[in-house]
Amino acid sequence: MEHSPKPRAIVLLSGGLDSATLLAIALSEGYEVYALSFRYGQRHEGELNAAQRLAKTMGAREHRIFSVDLRAFGGSALTDDISVPKGRDLTANHAIPPTYVPARNTVFLSIALAWAETLDAADIFIGVNVLDYSGYPDCRPEYIEAFQRMADLATKAGVEGRRKTQIHTPLIHLHKSEIIQKGLALGVDYSRTVSCYDPSPQGEPCGECDACQLRQSAFAKLGLQDPARIESGK
Amino acid sequence: MEHSPKPRAIVLLSGGLDSATLLAIALSEGYEVYALSFRYGQRHEGELNAAQRLAKTMGAREHRIFSVDLRAFGGSALTDDISVPKGRDLTANHAIPPTYVPARNTVFLSIALAWAETLDAADIFIGVNVLDYSGYPDCRPEYIEAFQRMADLATKAGVEGRRKTQIHTPLIHLHKSEIIQKGLALGVDYSRTVSCYDPSPQGEPCGECDACQLRQSAFAKLGLQDPARIESGK
Repeated sequence: MEHSPKPRAIVLLSGGLDSATLLAIALSEGYEVYALSFRYGQRHEGELNAAQRLAKTMGAREHRIFSVDLRAFGGSALTDDISVPKGRDLTANHAIPPTYVPARNTVFLSIALAWAETLDAADIFIGVNVLDYSGYPDCRPEYIEAFQRMADLATKAGVEGRRKTQIHTPLIHLHKSEIIQKGLALGVDYSRTVSCYDPSPQGEPCGECDACQLRQSAFAKLGLQDPARIESGK
Repeated sequence: MEHSPKPRAIVLLSGGLDSATLLAIALSEGYEVYALSFRYGQRHEGELNAAQRLAKTMGAREHRIFSVDLRAFGGSALTDDISVPKGRDLTANHAIPPTYVPARNTVFLSIALAWAETLDAADIFIGVNVLDYSGYPDCRPEYIEAFQRMADLATKAGVEGRRKTQIHTPLIHLHKSEIIQKGLALGVDYSRTVSCYDPSPQGEPCGECDACQLRQSAFAKLGLQDPARIESGK
């Protein structure tokens, strides 16, 4: 593989609205992007298909789907038989939600770190966000900083002082509607993204889970209709 | 599953000499042990078979082999086609060796953390060691401390203040011969452990890789013969 003059970055790409925006941001900042998705025992493959399409159409240099079966340990409504909560009041102050997957971002970032080290890349983009939904401990800036510190002690490049790992979280302080605005300005086609935690077998969003609700109200706030919902007829 | 009065601990069990000793230590300290091994693209399955036998005979409550294909990213003689170095002078001061797998301990500890959170376990045992072989950045105390700090920010239990993750590294400052002495005192049967990076198809240790050399000289220092070598006739 020839060395491109562009710096390389790993972008964690779930196939949802946030990570599509994240990919657009990394590309706009001039990185050669290596997109990374995980098959971790999600309830459906729709997200992964969306990730694959997004990586291809938006111009990632490479896209990998890495299998890591977090379902083996259980403990979350996203991977288990616990039901996905519907129609919750998201303005209320929540404890950690049942859709939390134990240590998920830590596992994902660690695997990204392994790939980054192989590619000699110092930059990892992750679409965590604290504002719209702050129930996940591994989405907070203090967690990200601690991961970054650990990463520099973990890796050859960090120890040899050749480079410092940089975990980029450009969405962390944005409201969902601001994320959408940013993405639209960068030309993201949101009809290609999948956010729903519990879509129909045909891939239509349920419209009622936390992810659907957040997405809907963010588009509404901008006076727009969600293109994914228009396309699916919902 | 009934809740045992014993505290639960995850023990990372590779099937080698160090992790067999680690398992014996965790059991002797009164933990209910959940042993965790990884199929990460090693060159051979001998280690995993040894781990399975050790977990069963030594009394782990459960043993899981988790697949995480770090070979997908390449970059190490343990998982790639790079050759395992033979007959190296281990008394010399080494740079990071070619058997280093990028971010391996970070990935392993992250997955252990996911299981620990599901089990409501606070304790994770890992057999890292800085003395005999200090070339790996992710075996140093400062790395382990940084991981622990990150873990408490990553998890529900840490954030809710219910418990602090404790990464136990009882072997970290021991010489290989001291590890063996400790294990023998706890009744570890070292004929059941596999250390070689590059065994024959019949599972016999090569006798020349770094791991074989270290093991051999440690037994020799104690005036003992390695039981694994006696058994394999080497």
